[in-house]
Amino acid sequence: MLDAEAALVRAQAALGNVPAQAAESITALARAELLDLRELAVLSRGAANPVVALVQAFTRLVADKDPAAADYVHRGSTSQDIFDTALMLVAGRTLAILAADLEHITGSLRALAEEHADALMAGRTLALHAVPTTFGLKAAGWLTAVGAAADRLRVLREDGLVVQLGGAAGTLAGYVEYEKLHSGGAPTDGYARRLTDRFAAETGLSAPALPWHSNRLPIAALAAELALTTGVLGKIAVDVQSLARTEVAEVAEPAAAGRGVSSAMPQKRNPALATLIRSAALQVPAYASVLTQTLLSEDERSAGAWHAEWQPLRECLRLAGGAAHTARELVAGLEVRPARMRENLGLTGGLIVSERLAAVLAPALGKAAAKEVMSRAARESATSGRPLATVLAGDPRITDRFDPRALAELLDPAGYTGAAAELTHEALRRHPVRAAGFVQGERGA
Amino acid sequence: MLDAEAALVRAQAALGNVPAQAAESITALARAELLDLRELAVLSRGAANPVVALVQAFTRLVADKDPAAADYVHRGSTSQDIFDTALMLVAGRTLAILAADLEHITGSLRALAEEHADALMAGRTLALHAVPTTFGLKAAGWLTAVGAAADRLRVLREDGLVVQLGGAAGTLAGYVEYEKLHSGGAPTDGYARRLTDRFAAETGLSAPALPWHSNRLPIAALAAELALTTGVLGKIAVDVQSLARTEVAEVAEPAAAGRGVSSAMPQKRNPALATLIRSAALQVPAYASVLTQTLLSEDERSAGAWHAEWQPLRECLRLAGGAAHTARELVAGLEVRPARMRENLGLTGGLIVSERLAAVLAPALGKAAAKEVMSRAARESATSGRPLATVLAGDPRITDRFDPRALAELLDPAGYTGAAAELTHEALRRHPVRAAGFVQGERGA
Amino acid sequence: MLDAEAALVRAQAALGNVPAQAAESITALARAELLDLRELAVLSRGAANPVVALVQAFTRLVADKDPAAADYVHRGSTSQDIFDTALMLVAGRTLAILAADLEHITGSLRALAEEHADALMAGRTLALHAVPTTFGLKAAGWLTAVGAAADRLRVLREDGLVVQLGGAAGTLAGYVEYEKLHSGGAPTDGYARRLTDRFAAETGLSAPALPWHSNRLPIAALAAELALTTGVLGKIAVDVQSLARTEVAEVAEPAAAGRGVSSAMPQKRNPALATLIRSAALQVPAYASVLTQTLLSEDERSAGAWHAEWQPLRECLRLAGGAAHTARELVAGLEVRPARMRENLGLTGGLIVSERLAAVLAPALGKAAAKEVMSRAARESATSGRPLATVLAGDPRITDRFDPRALAELLDPAGYTGAAAELTHEALRRHPVRAAGFVQGERGA
Amino acid sequence: MLDAEAALVRAQAALGNVPAQAAESITALARAELLDLRELAVLSRGAANPVVALVQAFTRLVADKDPAAADYVHRGSTSQDIFDTALMLVAGRTLAILAADLEHITGSLRALAEEHADALMAGRTLALHAVPTTFGLKAAGWLTAVGAAADRLRVLREDGLVVQLGGAAGTLAGYVEYEKLHSGGAPTDGYARRLTDRFAAETGLSAPALPWHSNRLPIAALAAELALTTGVLGKIAVDVQSLARTEVAEVAEPAAAGRGVSSAMPQKRNPALATLIRSAALQVPAYASVLTQTLLSEDERSAGAWHAEWQPLRECLRLAGGAAHTARELVAGLEVRPARMRENLGLTGGLIVSERLAAVLAPALGKAAAKEVMSRAARESATSGRPLATVLAGDPRITDRFDPRALAELLDPAGYTGAAAELTHEALRRHPVRAAGFVQGERGA
Repeated sequence: MLDAEAALVRAQAALGNVPAQAAESITALARAELLDLRELAVLSRGAANPVVALVQAFTRLVADKDPAAADYVHRGSTSQDIFDTALMLVAGRTLAILAADLEHITGSLRALAEEHADALMAGRTLALHAVPTTFGLKAAGWLTAVGAAADRLRVLREDGLVVQLGGAAGTLAGYVEYEKLHSGGAPTDGYARRLTDRFAAETGLSAPALPWHSNRLPIAALAAELALTTGVLGKIAVDVQSLARTEVAEVAEPAAAGRGVSSAMPQKRNPALATLIRSAALQVPAYASVLTQTLLSEDERSAGAWHAEWQPLRECLRLAGGAAHTARELVAGLEVRPARMRENLGLTGGLIVSERLAAVLAPALGKAAAKEVMSRAARESATSGRPLATVLAGDPRITDRFDPRALAELLDPAGYTGAAAELTHEALRRHPVRAAGFVQGERGA
Repeated sequence: MLDAEAALVRAQAALGNVPAQAAESITALARAELLDLRELAVLSRGAANPVVALVQAFTRLVADKDPAAADYVHRGSTSQDIFDTALMLVAGRTLAILAADLEHITGSLRALAEEHADALMAGRTLALHAVPTTFGLKAAGWLTAVGAAADRLRVLREDGLVVQLGGAAGTLAGYVEYEKLHSGGAPTDGYARRLTDRFAAETGLSAPALPWHSNRLPIAALAAELALTTGVLGKIAVDVQSLARTEVAEVAEPAAAGRGVSSAMPQKRNPALATLIRSAALQVPAYASVLTQTLLSEDERSAGAWHAEWQPLRECLRLAGGAAHTARELVAGLEVRPARMRENLGLTGGLIVSERLAAVLAPALGKAAAKEVMSRAARESATSGRPLATVLAGDPRITDRFDPRALAELLDPAGYTGAAAELTHEALRRHPVRAAGFVQGERGA
Repeated sequence: MLDAEAALVRAQAALGNVPAQAAESITALARAELLDLRELAVLSRGAANPVVALVQAFTRLVADKDPAAADYVHRGSTSQDIFDTALMLVAGRTLAILAADLEHITGSLRALAEEHADALMAGRTLALHAVPTTFGLKAAGWLTAVGAAADRLRVLREDGLVVQLGGAAGTLAGYVEYEKLHSGGAPTDGYARRLTDRFAAETGLSAPALPWHSNRLPIAALAAELALTTGVLGKIAVDVQSLARTEVAEVAEPAAAGRGVSSAMPQKRNPALATLIRSAALQVPAYASVLTQTLLSEDERSAGAWHAEWQPLRECLRLAGGAAHTARELVAGLEVRPARMRENLGLTGGLIVSERLAAVLAPALGKAAAKEVMSRAARESATSGRPLATVLAGDPRITDRFDPRALAELLDPAGYTGAAAELTHEALRRHPVRAAGFVQGERGA
Repeated sequence: MLDAEAALVRAQAALGNVPAQAAESITALARAELLDLRELAVLSRGAANPVVALVQAFTRLVADKDPAAADYVHRGSTSQDIFDTALMLVAGRTLAILAADLEHITGSLRALAEEHADALMAGRTLALHAVPTTFGLKAAGWLTAVGAAADRLRVLREDGLVVQLGGAAGTLAGYVEYEKLHSGGAPTDGYARRLTDRFAAETGLSAPALPWHSNRLPIAALAAELALTTGVLGKIAVDVQSLARTEVAEVAEPAAAGRGVSSAMPQKRNPALATLIRSAALQVPAYASVLTQTLLSEDERSAGAWHAEWQPLRECLRLAGGAAHTARELVAGLEVRPARMRENLGLTGGLIVSERLAAVLAPALGKAAAKEVMSRAARESATSGRPLATVLAGDPRITDRFDPRALAELLDPAGYTGAAAELTHEALRRHPVRAAGFVQGERGA
C-alpha cells in the first residue's frame, strides 16, 4: 500500500501538480518498517478497511520529516485506489516467483518425459489396470497441462495486473479537482488518462480501460487462473500418491533430511510434498469461488463484496505459490522405478492387453463376439488364477488363428502402447527447453 | 498442541504407566512462549504437519529441565492425535466467546423487537414495497434465526468437540503397547477406553465413540455450524444495509469515533459493521465447503485431505467469531427511525395495501376480478402520480361499496399488518431473557 | 406445489372460513397430471417463479370442474408459501427414502464389522503402510460415521422440515384479512398460529416459530446435513477404491450383470458403485455452499437469493439420495478378501511393526535412541530388500534382549493391533440391530 | 454423443480403414430420436457412464439397418472419447448462442452509455451517496466488463473447445491397432495425429496437443469462463435492483405482459429479469468450483472426478446462457429516469460534494484541516437538516474565500463529475459497433 501511495504521488508530480521534492520525501518514507503494523491492524476495523488508518499514520510520519510534503499524501485519492493497486502489486510479485517455479517444473517434466519415454507401465482407469502406457506419456501429459497453465499466467501477467485509479466513485473527480486548482481552471482534458498511465508506469502494472471499483473482473480472473494452476499441479500430486502407494511403489518422492518423517513410525517416508500440493489444490477452488461470487458488487463500491475478496485472494496466492514451489522440488527429484512398473504390468497375467486381442479377433469373429470371447477368457483367468495366455491356449477359436509365438507376441504389453511414443515426442517438441529465460524471471522477483 | 501433549501425559499418569512427576514437569513446560514459533513453522513443512517438529523441540526443552520426563513426551502418540485435539481445543475456546456474543445479540434483538413491536414499515420483496409490516417483526425474525443458530451451537459445544486418540492408525496400538510393557504383559482390556475418557477429562473435550482419524464428521459438522451462524448474522447485515441506504434511511449504525470513516469523503458514515459482517458471511460458506469435501479422506489418514482442513477451519472460526463480535456491537447500538419508516410507507400513495383491497373486493367481484380492478388502479396511480385513494374514489365499483371514511380506513397501512404483533410477541416469549448466564460463558472463555 | 395448495385450503376449511366442499374439490384436482408441465415451465420465467403460472392454470382447472371452489385456490397466499412448503414436502419424501437406505447401510456395515472383526490388514496413512489394523475396525469407523449422520438426519426429519406460511411479507395479512371478512370483523387473535399449525398438520410437516421467508436457516441446515451425509458415504467409496486397486485387491465391488463394464476393455470390472458415490460427494459440498450463501437474503424476500436455492437444493437431494441408494448396494455385497489382506501385510517384510519395536526397545535404550535404531534398520531393510527380521537378527542391541522366538512374536502383525477388537465391539454395541424399523420407514416413503 | 460417434467413424473412413458406406450409414442413423432415452438413462448407471449403454443400443440400431456397418460403431474407442467430445460439442453450441447474446448486450450498453453520458446521478459506495457520477459512466463500466468477458469467451471458442481422442488410456492403442490390422502391419507413424486432426475437423472442434483424459484443464477453464461471464452480468443485475428499489426508482425493468407479476400483490412489477440473472450468478461460482476441484483426477481416468464434472458443467452452461439471454432483454429495454436521478442527487442537501469543498479549501487551510471543516459542516447539516450551503454560508472560513455565487457553483453536483464524460467516451471508442457480425454468430448457433 505504501508503494501505491508513493507511486501515486510520483505520478502526480510527473504531471506537474505536486512538487518533486514532496514526491521524493514520500517515496523515501514509504517503508513498512517505519509504521506500527499491529496498531494499524487494530485501527483498520473502524473503517472496515486498512487504508484510512494507514493514511493517517503515514501522513503523520511524513509531516514529521517533511511537513511540506504531508498534504500530498493520498491527495485526491480513495481507499480503494490504494488497496486494489497494492493487491495487484502483491499479486505481481507472487506471480513472478510462481512463473519461475513453473518454468523449473516444465523443465523437470521435460526431462522425465524424455528419460522415461519408453518406460512401460500399466495405464490405470477407475482404479484398475486398463491398457499399457508409458511413464513418458504420463509425464508428457503433466508437462502439457502445466505448460498451458503457465502460458495462461503469462498472458495474465502481461496485461491482467492493472492499477486502480478512480477516486471516490470511479470518476477521478478528486484528482481532476486538484489539477484544476493547480492549473487555475484551465481545461483538464485527458488528465485522467495521463494520470492513470503514469501511475501504471510508476507501479509496473498495466493501465485499465476504466476504473474497476465495482467491476471486478480483473480480480476474479486472477483467482480463476490461480485455481487452474494449482489444480494442474494437484493432478501431478495425486498421480504421484497413486504410484507411491506401498503396493504399487513405482515412484518415490525425493528424499531429504527430515522430509516425510512420521512422529510415530520409524519406517515411513511419507509423500509429504505431494501431500502439501494436493492439500493446496483441495482448497484453492473454494477460495477462488468467493472471488467470482463477489463479482456481484453493487453500486460504485459494494458494502461487503469488496471486503470479502481480500482474505481468499491472499490464500489463493499463497497456496498456488506454495504448491508450485513444492512441485518444483517434487518433480526435480522424483524417483522413477521402471523395473517395478514392468513388474506390476504383469500382475494381471496378460489381461491388460485384452482389448488388443478383442481387436485382433474382431475381423474374424465380429467385434461383439470377439469382445465376448475375451470377456469370458478374462473372467476365467481372474477366477482361476491361470494366466490369460494359458486360458487362451486352450481355446480353439484362438489356437486356430494364432500359433504360440504369435499369441505370445500379441500378449506382450510392449506391443500395445499405441501412439504413446509419438505423443510423448510431440509434447516435448511443443515445449522446447527455454534458454535460461526463467533465471531472469527469478531475478525479477 | 502443547495443551494436548500435556493432557495426554497427565491422562497416562492418571492411569498409572507414567510417573506423576513427569506429567507435572511436562505440563509446567507446555508453554508456547518457551518455543521458537518461527523455527517450528519452517520445520513443519518437512513432515507436512507441525507436530513432528513441535515434538522434537518440546522434547529437547523437557530434557533440558527434567531429563527423566523427556521420554514421556508424545509417548505412544501420533501427530494427528495432538493436532486434531488441539484444533478442537481452539474451536472450544472460540465457541465460548462466540456463544457469549450470540447471547448478547439475542438480548439486543429482544429489546429491538419489543421496543419497535408497533413500528410500522414497508415490507419489501424483490426490492419493492410489498405490504406493510413492523420493524418489531423484522427484529423478531432475526432473533428467531440467531436463537436457533445459538441453540445448534450449544448442542455442538456439549458433545461435538471431541478429543482425537487413536495412535498411528486408529488402533491405539502404541498406547496399549506401553501399558503392556508397564503391566508386564497383564491384559490391557479397557485401557483404550479409559485412556480416551481420561484424556477427554483432562482437556475438557468430549470422548468420541471411536478415533476419527479419517472419519471427519466432527470437523465437517463444526464448519457447517459456523457457516450457518455466520449466515444468519449476515442476514441482519444485509437488512441493515438495505435500510441504511441514503434514500431509505430507516436505520443507521451506531456511531463511534473513527467508525465508518471514509478516506475521501468527509460527510460519510459508512455502515462499516454491517459491511464486515456481510464480508464474513460471503466467505465462510466457501471455506466450510472445503471441510465437507475433505470428508473424502481415504485410508487411515489421507495424504492431503487432512491437511486441507486446517486453514479453512481457522478462517471459519475467525470469521464467525468476528462476525458475532461485530454484530453484537451493531445490534446493541442500532439507531432505528420509526418516523422515517412511516414516511417511506406513504411513498407509493397507498399502493402498499392493494393486496388488502383486492381481498376486500373479492367476495363481491370474485377474486380474479378484484385483483384485476386493483392492478388497473395501481397502474393508473403509478402512471399518473395520483394517490391510489384518489384513483379509487373515481371508480363506482369502489364508491358503491365503501364510503370515504371506510375507504380511508382500508387504505391505512396500520390496519393491514396481519399477525405481525402476535408473531413478534410469540418470538419474544420463545426467547426469554436469560438470567445473566452468558456472563459466566464469557468468564469461561 | 399442488399438495401445498390443497393442504392450505383444507387448513382454511378446517378453521371455518372456506366451505368444506371447495377444499374437497381443490384437493381432488390437485394432481400434476392434469396440468401441462411444459407450458408451466415456459410461463414461470415471467414471474421468476413457477407459482404464479401454476396458480393461474390450477384456478382455471378448478373453475372448470367446480366454479364455486375456484376463488379459494391460493386465497390469501403468496408464491413463497407454496413453493417453500412444496420444497419441504419434496425434501421429506426424499429423506424418508434416504433414511431407509441409511438403515440398510448401517445394517450391512454392522455385519461387515462383525464378520471381519479379526481380519488383519495394513493400516495405511499418507498412502503408505503404517501399522496393522483390522478390516473390522475400518468397517466400524464407517458404521459410526454413517450412524451419526443418520442420527442427525433423524433429528432434522423430526422438527426441521417446516411449512412456510407468511403471506406476501411474513405477516399473514392476507389470510387474516379473509378471516376478518368471514367473521365480520370479530377479533382474529390466534388465527395465524392456528392456521399455521393446521397447515402443518395437513402437510405432515412441522410448524415453524415464525414465517421464515427471508430467514433461511431451515433450508441451509437441510443442505448442510445432505452434504455431511454424502460425505460420510463418500469416505466409504474412496476407501473401497483404495482397496480395490489392481495392486491391492483386498476388496471388490459386488458383481452384477452390466455393472462396471468398460466400453473398451473386456477384462475390467470397474468399481462403478464407489465411483458414483464419490462423484456425488465431490459435488454436494459446492451445491450446499450456495444454500449458506443465500442466507444473505435481504428484506422480506430477496430478489435472487431465494431463487438461487432451488436448483442446488434439488441436486443435493438427488445426489445424497442417489449416493445412499448406491452405497446400500455397495456395502451389502462388498467382497472382502482377508487372505489378500494378510498377504499385503507382509509386503514390507515386517516394517509395519517398526513402531512396536521402537516402543519395546524404548525402556532400555531411551525413546529417541530406540526410534533411531528402528529407523536405521528400516532403511537398511528397504534398501537391501532383506526382511526386517533378518536385519534385526544381526544387531546385538536386539539379540541381546530378545531370543529369536520373542523377536518373531514381536514382529507378528497380529500381535500389534492395539485396541482394534475392543473398539470394533464397542461400535457394534453402540449401533444395535434395529427391529426392522426401517421397513416401515420405507413403506412411509 | 451420437454426433461424436458419427464424426469418429467418418474420420476413420477418411483415413481409409473404414468403408465409406459404413460411415454414411452410421452418420445417417446418428439421431437421438431413434433411441429410447429413458432406457439409456436407466442402463447408464451400470457402467457409471452413459456411453456403454448408448453404444450397445446404437450398434443394435445400425445392425438392424446396415449389418455391415455395425462393427464400425465406436471401433477402437472408449467411453471418454465420446463423452468428452460430446460435452465440448454441447458447450460449443451453447457458447455460440451466448456469444450472440453478449453481442446484443454490448450493443444495448453502448446505446445506454451514449444516451445517458451526461445523466447526473449519485455515485454510491457502501450503500451511501458518495460523490456525483453519471449513468453513462455506470453503463460504460458494465460495457467494459461484458466486453472483456466476451473477448475471453471468443478466445476460448477459437481454440479451447477440443476433441477428446485417446482410447482406453490415452495412447490411442485401439485406433492404431485397427489401422495396423488394416494396413497389414505397415508402420502407423503419424496415424494418431492424423486421426485426431480429422476427428476435430469432422466435429468443428479443435485438436488438442495430447489426449486430456485426466488432464482436465480444458473443462476447468471452460467452467471458469462461464463463471466470469455470469458474474459480470450479475453485477448489472444487482445495480439494476439497487436503482429500482421503491425509494430510489431511478431505473425500471422493461415491462412485458406477465412479467414481474406477483401472486399476491396487484401493484407490483418485480424486477424479475435482474432477479433471474442474480440468481444465476449466485450459483455458477459454486458449480464452477467443482470443475477446478476435479482437476485432481488420478491415474489415466479418475474413478469419480471425471463423473463429477458432468452435472455442474451442464448447470454452468445453462445458467450462463440463461443469464445472458435474460440480460439481453433487460438492457435492451431498461427504463432510465434521469429526472429522478437528479432529484435523488439533491437528497443530501449538497453533502455529496463535500469532498470537492475539502479539496478546494485544502490549499488555504491544509488538507487535514479542510477535511475537518467539511466533516463538521456535514455533521451539522445532517443533524440539523439544514442544507450544507446554509451551514457553510455561516462559516467565515468559507465566506472569506468564496462569494455566494462561487459557493453555489462549487456546490453544484454537475461541476464535480471529474472525468466521467471522458471515461465514458473512451469506453465507447474501445467498443465500436460491430457490423452486424453477431447475426452470423446466431445463425451458426
